[in-house]
Amino acid sequence: MKKSKTIILAAGQGTRMHSQKPKVLHQVCGKNILDYVVEASKASGISDIGVIVGCQAETVKASLSPEIETILQKEQLGTGHAVLQALPFFNELKGNLIVLVGDAPLIRPETIQGLIAIHEKNGYAATVLTAEFANPTGYGRMIKNAANELIKIVEEKDASPEEKKVTEINSGMYCFDTQTLISALKELKTDNVQGEYYLTDVIEIMRKMGKTAGTYTTPDCEDIQAVNSRSQLAEAEAVMRKRINRKLMDAGVTMIDPATTYISSQTIVGQDTILYPGVILEGETAIGSNTTIGANSRLVNAKIGNDVTIQISTILDSEVDDGTSIGPYAYIRPGSKIGKHCKVGDFVEVKNSTMGDGAKASHLTYIGDGDVGENVNLGCGTVFVNYDGKKKYRTVVEKDAFVGCNTNLIAPVTVKEGAYIAAGSTITDDVPEESLAIARARQVNKVGYLKK
Amino acid sequence: MKKSKTIILAAGQGTRMHSQKPKVLHQVCGKNILDYVVEASKASGISDIGVIVGCQAETVKASLSPEIETILQKEQLGTGHAVLQALPFFNELKGNLIVLVGDAPLIRPETIQGLIAIHEKNGYAATVLTAEFANPTGYGRMIKNAANELIKIVEEKDASPEEKKVTEINSGMYCFDTQTLISALKELKTDNVQGEYYLTDVIEIMRKMGKTAGTYTTPDCEDIQAVNSRSQLAEAEAVMRKRINRKLMDAGVTMIDPATTYISSQTIVGQDTILYPGVILEGETAIGSNTTIGANSRLVNAKIGNDVTIQISTILDSEVDDGTSIGPYAYIRPGSKIGKHCKVGDFVEVKNSTMGDGAKASHLTYIGDGDVGENVNLGCGTVFVNYDGKKKYRTVVEKDAFVGCNTNLIAPVTVKEGAYIAAGSTITDDVPEESLAIARARQVNKVGYLKK
Amino acid sequence: MKKSKTIILAAGQGTRMHSQKPKVLHQVCGKNILDYVVEASKASGISDIGVIVGCQAETVKASLSPEIETILQKEQLGTGHAVLQALPFFNELKGNLIVLVGDAPLIRPETIQGLIAIHEKNGYAATVLTAEFANPTGYGRMIKNAANELIKIVEEKDASPEEKKVTEINSGMYCFDTQTLISALKELKTDNVQGEYYLTDVIEIMRKMGKTAGTYTTPDCEDIQAVNSRSQLAEAEAVMRKRINRKLMDAGVTMIDPATTYISSQTIVGQDTILYPGVILEGETAIGSNTTIGANSRLVNAKIGNDVTIQISTILDSEVDDGTSIGPYAYIRPGSKIGKHCKVGDFVEVKNSTMGDGAKASHLTYIGDGDVGENVNLGCGTVFVNYDGKKKYRTVVEKDAFVGCNTNLIAPVTVKEGAYIAAGSTITDDVPEESLAIARARQVNKVGYLKK
Repeated sequence: MKKSKTIILAAGQGTRMHSQKPKVLHQVCGKNILDYVVEASKASGISDIGVIVGCQAETVKASLSPEIETILQKEQLGTGHAVLQALPFFNELKGNLIVLVGDAPLIRPETIQGLIAIHEKNGYAATVLTAEFANPTGYGRMIKNAANELIKIVEEKDASPEEKKVTEINSGMYCFDTQTLISALKELKTDNVQGEYYLTDVIEIMRKMGKTAGTYTTPDCEDIQAVNSRSQLAEAEAVMRKRINRKLMDAGVTMIDPATTYISSQTIVGQDTILYPGVILEGETAIGSNTTIGANSRLVNAKIGNDVTIQISTILDSEVDDGTSIGPYAYIRPGSKIGKHCKVGDFVEVKNSTMGDGAKASHLTYIGDGDVGENVNLGCGTVFVNYDGKKKYRTVVEKDAFVGCNTNLIAPVTVKEGAYIAAGSTITDDVPEESLAIARARQVNKVGYLKK
Repeated sequence: MKKSKTIILAAGQGTRMHSQKPKVLHQVCGKNILDYVVEASKASGISDIGVIVGCQAETVKASLSPEIETILQKEQLGTGHAVLQALPFFNELKGNLIVLVGDAPLIRPETIQGLIAIHEKNGYAATVLTAEFANPTGYGRMIKNAANELIKIVEEKDASPEEKKVTEINSGMYCFDTQTLISALKELKTDNVQGEYYLTDVIEIMRKMGKTAGTYTTPDCEDIQAVNSRSQLAEAEAVMRKRINRKLMDAGVTMIDPATTYISSQTIVGQDTILYPGVILEGETAIGSNTTIGANSRLVNAKIGNDVTIQISTILDSEVDDGTSIGPYAYIRPGSKIGKHCKVGDFVEVKNSTMGDGAKASHLTYIGDGDVGENVNLGCGTVFVNYDGKKKYRTVVEKDAFVGCNTNLIAPVTVKEGAYIAAGSTITDDVPEESLAIARARQVNKVGYLKK
Repeated sequence: MKKSKTIILAAGQGTRMHSQKPKVLHQVCGKNILDYVVEASKASGISDIGVIVGCQAETVKASLSPEIETILQKEQLGTGHAVLQALPFFNELKGNLIVLVGDAPLIRPETIQGLIAIHEKNGYAATVLTAEFANPTGYGRMIKNAANELIKIVEEKDASPEEKKVTEINSGMYCFDTQTLISALKELKTDNVQGEYYLTDVIEIMRKMGKTAGTYTTPDCEDIQAVNSRSQLAEAEAVMRKRINRKLMDAGVTMIDPATTYISSQTIVGQDTILYPGVILEGETAIGSNTTIGANSRLVNAKIGNDVTIQISTILDSEVDDGTSIGPYAYIRPGSKIGKHCKVGDFVEVKNSTMGDGAKASHLTYIGDGDVGENVNLGCGTVFVNYDGKKKYRTVVEKDAFVGCNTNLIAPVTVKEGAYIAAGSTITDDVPEESLAIARARQVNKVGYLKK
């Protein structure tokens, strides 16, 4: 491959989205549309990328990593105008300029590579990425000569009845010989109905310059699907979901219903793990082997070990080690680290806490800012009282301790190794090793009190 | 449009439903099938509606609003017989009589209007609403002459091989010139296999009377889909779901997976709000802008503000104001009003209560029949003890109060402004302003008690 | 039908599954793939079944019920070799030998019966179960003569261009005349590229022996769908889900979205019961009539009565009687028996316990190893303290008792009939009939303590 740069057209607002956000910052499977396009370029081998921004330029720019150059298109005067703004970005380039659109998140690196390969092999000045559509209505058509060279691109409204029959359509993505493009761009006119500079006009201009152009037809039409509305956003999400899930299934993950299993592209899942319907895995989640993620669990940036069983639960930015059982209806909040063979049961919240191997909190418990040792048993209704209305404090329960039901541990406090707290106690002071702590009133029965 | 009335055929039981309920009272997206048909007539401009009832007549009648007339068809002697029962309802009418079927919930007002427009434009005595089916097997076929006039409708079993090739089929819905229909109805015979009065026979009778008939083909076949089984009920629900979701997406709502987002037709959702998979919005729910409704949340008659974040939760007949965070696993029961920037966290129930702006109940708390002031903090495990076994009482926690964890507030009781309750207390008496209340036993450590 | 036996080929590992488990032990709708094939044979009338095992033979054998014979194929030398290993199993049989594949869970008994019927009617020596595929690429083709007799089966790679046009393909399932098959098997050679014994070669051998062969084309292509990858496993699951749900809907069950309703084949559901999206019914679950199972509920081996309402909850190996209300967010664990008209509300766990008719636990309660009498009211935050760190004990709350909020019942303990426990008490001793028990500290207000 020759030296190449990519420019991505991302200046439009996307009015049909009816959104306060620029279109390219809407998300597909948890990632900005524009980021998919940037990543596809990088994965195809081209990391020198300029993004043309316009509507909400600052917001779009802020969403990009700093090594991506942004070029401001102040006015929206057509695709040709957009590319012209980027002239300083590619002026010196002797090689390929790839033009991508920022609202087509499904573009794949192999498709970009295919485009470049055809371009270089045929010595074209311009190669258009196209698709074959059974129903091409509304798209620009590829008009070719007998030698299969591209003569021009005609828009739907300008097409003759014969031209309308052409089913090879324009994706709006191109590979150009940069210096030829620069010459051609200077010839662009605005003598059309919209009064805009059309990038598609460069094909005819290049022909006049004695150059040839051609097309590369994507093997997968989904590649070029642009997002212009929320419905199309949902369609792109569905395609991406299928791709992500297919890849995981191919690697040995069982999904009961891949249509309703929602996984970020960064997520890793081990072999023989089973994902039930409605599971959502977001961000940088990693799941081990032979683990079961029960229906409707949501995990965000979670690291889950092997042989873990999760029933419907929510886990955010936390780790769960091998053989542990979670839920149903558990909520593990950021900064938690659950050891091996632990139990975090129903209606249990763990927040910014650690649990040693074998520790159990089976039901109706809040572990907040705590360090729970190995094999500790927290009875039902245990509350780590970590907040006094002003500050938060930590609670330590050392290994082998037993905390009776409905106990309050008023932080900062330490329950030492092997200590035992009677049910219903409010613990304000440290409990020494292997000691019994109790803090509750004695029972009084008023016998027959309810008889009349 | 001429003066028009609608009659809706809703006398059948629907045996293939295998139900104790009459077919037309089964629901699609939370609304009775029959109500959709009534509403389509009204929205098309015809509010003078008679419903022919038969099986479980009283139940069907009770489901309708009182301005809808019901006409009893005691015996089920065919569609012609059904219409004849309604004679007093339309006897005097000089105009159009629209006949709809009560089990086709997907009929749209624009389709009824299209039917009437063709009817009036062509001066037909009868116009049949039809559809083009690639596979017309089982349906009545439209037999036309060269002038595109309808000659007769033949049932599948009576059709010649040539007639069976016709792909324009009968929906069972019609626009009639009322007085011509009345004349024709009187000629109906029962000389057929079933011994019933067929409404379809009026076409030939009218032809003999020198009148012409025609058809209007719906642009959308789903319009005429009748519900005869639970599978068809599910299919109608899927079509309605698609229609409702499409409309919301067009207006700027993001749905991660519209196929699994279940919304009533009355629900309103603001721009840039995100609905995750499995969300169910029932009844008269209204959601503001830029709000996130997390996966598998269920909201019924809920009013939700802007910038609200809901993780998997259940909210019934309540209000949640701007910027508030709900869940995961929260349950807000009828009559609750949550202010701005509140937090109702995990395993928290709120019932028939108010929460002022900035109030927080982060976990494992029950707020029943309470009024919680601004910026109140309810610790983990707080219980509003609203029921003494006989009566329910209210609890008031005034603004800026701090309720420690695992506190019982025995109603009726008031915690005054800025008061502070120590964790683990059972509060039976009012707590004065900026006072500390405590009601717990002192901790005793029996040191070394567990050593052998 | 002649006397018949079935052999099932289940020796392969299924490398494309990328699994530690043998392919045939992966599950579809909660049941092993192989078990579906065994059950289809039984339901078709053939209970004399031999399973050819190879990879992880012991594991596969252990999964089968003991009346199923297993035959070890030590080396994987082709389908012909596999059948040869089973010679002792069918050596004496004068009748039909049915050959099924262990990785095609969708095979139906009526299809096996159709295969046998054609086989016997035509007096074939071999009848192949086939399907018509629009795109037959990759499958073995049926080559027939003018008399519609099967001449041979050619594999894709050996097929001439003309043969490749054949769209009738091989399922790998057969009905053989057993004694003819035995003769033919002895003639099998390994003179092919793979060096394996191909079962398909017996067709030509039988023709040489003067016998005829034929085919039976399944009316439903899904019948023969084999599972070779996780994607195909998900597809098989989707087909099975559709079949199970269709059957239940036909019997009068409403499903809002059958595509996302996940039910085991053994589950029974009564008429007019409504299943919301995301419901999972596993194992031997039985649900009565007119019951509502709310979205995302999971029931495993649950017996649910009539007129029950369940909001999002998890119920395992337990019973719930008529008119009871469960959830949302309830967790009923194995061995529980909930009576009629009870309430098990939000954030309530019931484990190995009974609740009499009319008993209520509305919120944030743990009933573990308890017996709760009729009309008992358990206040919010009630905890059955069943575990002292060493042993578990039972708690009894007799009928009409009232347990105040945030009460601990330290087992073993009995609260007698009509007793009343004050909120916030820890109960260590039995409470007599109609008596009041109280065990809490008195409230102290430090007035103005928080003023500076």
